[in-house]
Amino acid sequence: MEKTLVFGHKNPDTDTICSAVAYANLKNKLGVNAEAARLGEVNKETQYALDFFNVEAPQLIDAVPADVKDVILVDHNEFQQSVSNINDVRIVEVIDHHRVSNFETKEPLYFRAEPVGCTATILNKMYKENGVEVTKEIAGLLLSAIVSDSLLLKSPTCTQEDVDAAHELAKIAGVELEQYGLDMLQAGADLSDKSPEELITMDAKEFAMGDAKVEIAQVNTVDASKVYELQAELEAVMDKAVNEKGLDLFLFVVTDILNNDSEVLARGGNIEKVAEAFQVELDSNNRALLKGVVSRKKQIVTALTDVFTK
Amino acid sequence: MEKTLVFGHKNPDTDTICSAVAYANLKNKLGVNAEAARLGEVNKETQYALDFFNVEAPQLIDAVPADVKDVILVDHNEFQQSVSNINDVRIVEVIDHHRVSNFETKEPLYFRAEPVGCTATILNKMYKENGVEVTKEIAGLLLSAIVSDSLLLKSPTCTQEDVDAAHELAKIAGVELEQYGLDMLQAGADLSDKSPEELITMDAKEFAMGDAKVEIAQVNTVDASKVYELQAELEAVMDKAVNEKGLDLFLFVVTDILNNDSEVLARGGNIEKVAEAFQVELDSNNRALLKGVVSRKKQIVTALTDVFTK
Repeated sequence: MEKTLVFGHKNPDTDTICSAVAYANLKNKLGVNAEAARLGEVNKETQYALDFFNVEAPQLIDAVPADVKDVILVDHNEFQQSVSNINDVRIVEVIDHHRVSNFETKEPLYFRAEPVGCTATILNKMYKENGVEVTKEIAGLLLSAIVSDSLLLKSPTCTQEDVDAAHELAKIAGVELEQYGLDMLQAGADLSDKSPEELITMDAKEFAMGDAKVEIAQVNTVDASKVYELQAELEAVMDKAVNEKGLDLFLFVVTDILNNDSEVLARGGNIEKVAEAFQVELDSNNRALLKGVVSRKKQIVTALTDVFTK
Repeated sequence: MEKTLVFGHKNPDTDTICSAVAYANLKNKLGVNAEAARLGEVNKETQYALDFFNVEAPQLIDAVPADVKDVILVDHNEFQQSVSNINDVRIVEVIDHHRVSNFETKEPLYFRAEPVGCTATILNKMYKENGVEVTKEIAGLLLSAIVSDSLLLKSPTCTQEDVDAAHELAKIAGVELEQYGLDMLQAGADLSDKSPEELITMDAKEFAMGDAKVEIAQVNTVDASKVYELQAELEAVMDKAVNEKGLDLFLFVVTDILNNDSEVLARGGNIEKVAEAFQVELDSNNRALLKGVVSRKKQIVTALTDVFTK
């Protein structure tokens, strides 16, 4: 039987890796010759989850091999986030929880996107719909994905469906939700071996806000003050990016996963927009504490876009 | 509660109208203030179904009114097939069975496409998933949509899921599937009041096949010879289109819904491609009988594309 590859987005996070593994497993149980793959390095948080549940990381690819015709995308649909040769393969399914953009097919397909906090929440439902039992290992991976995308159920992207799935899966996985979730997030929040360049680029995204170009980088931590011991070096890297890319604003977001706040550092010519967007004063270091702000997508991009486009 | 509009594609067919009505009904039962709408005239086949089950046609719109923010698309996703102001509204859901193309959103949504023969087949499943009873009227509309899209379960686009849904729905609707289906198709196949221009344009689509521009028009009938009494007038209309649009081929497909064959008429500079694609001889009138061919999408476009691009 021809092989179908299942993979998530570039710069893989825990939802993308765990959803690829879990959905390939479900397809196997349904008689499809599916294999999971990944498009980049496994981060520390994901590695913690894989090690805890004793599951191997899927194979690393950057393009779909010539002998594979059919692929399934999980946790993404935008072609620029996918494999380099996405236009040369047949996409037979998509399981996702993002907006739909820069995606098209020649033929009808199974496309399932739902506005929930995590792809794994949809997959948990699909196991049930197909009457396939979720094993302890798969439950652990799906749970890890939900914990990661929802910052332990505290992000505003988290829905009741995600919460219910997480509790259900924790029981099957045999772990205590709060303790396991915190341990996993802390494993990912270990930034001790990261250089200032890595901290600024490891999860950075650029956004168009009206005519303005805004870059927002985010890291998770349990101790923001530790990260800001490198403030001078971080600023140098950010200023270089502002000049080279012609950015109107660069915002570095250090999210405290224990307190669910973010301490941000602003550089570029429009740092007063940050004060306006979040109704805060920036201190003499161009930093500000944003109480209760953890989601780049739902809390930061939206607030800044409003200010830049009004 | 704000109103959500539910509608299908322009040049509405039976699946598009019936799916809009049925899905608005399901959303109502689930507590959403949804209303069905349509983007064009109701054709004879659809009118037969609406009359038979005593259901009113949904409201006619060409743009979403200013007081409506949220819309649900059924049976289509490509923006050029939708309302004129599709870019100004929020698409909260899509239920479809076509390829995905020229579609995007700013926010996550509920997007459900499945590679089945008819949108109504997916909706029948969604009633069950939500534990909502399908009434006699809704069953009649969903059944009519499946009969229409599958030419009474005989099109190669028809899947086992469509077949099972049709039998189940016929029972609830209280009709004999074969008899009702044939009566409805025959109502739609009444071409007696159509001018040659109408026959050629009422369901015509243009396709790019390699460098060639090919237009394919299709009508359903119970008597192809009756349609071809107008051969001279049909040719005149087709030749005009060939010249005005610079077509490489214009194929007129007259599909016999009783015998499940199509008699085609070819015009333009590449009529020999038709002979090659279907391994038939065209007669002195540039016509040929294509045995067992009923689906433009699955049987005609594919065969012609192969010949034009080899």
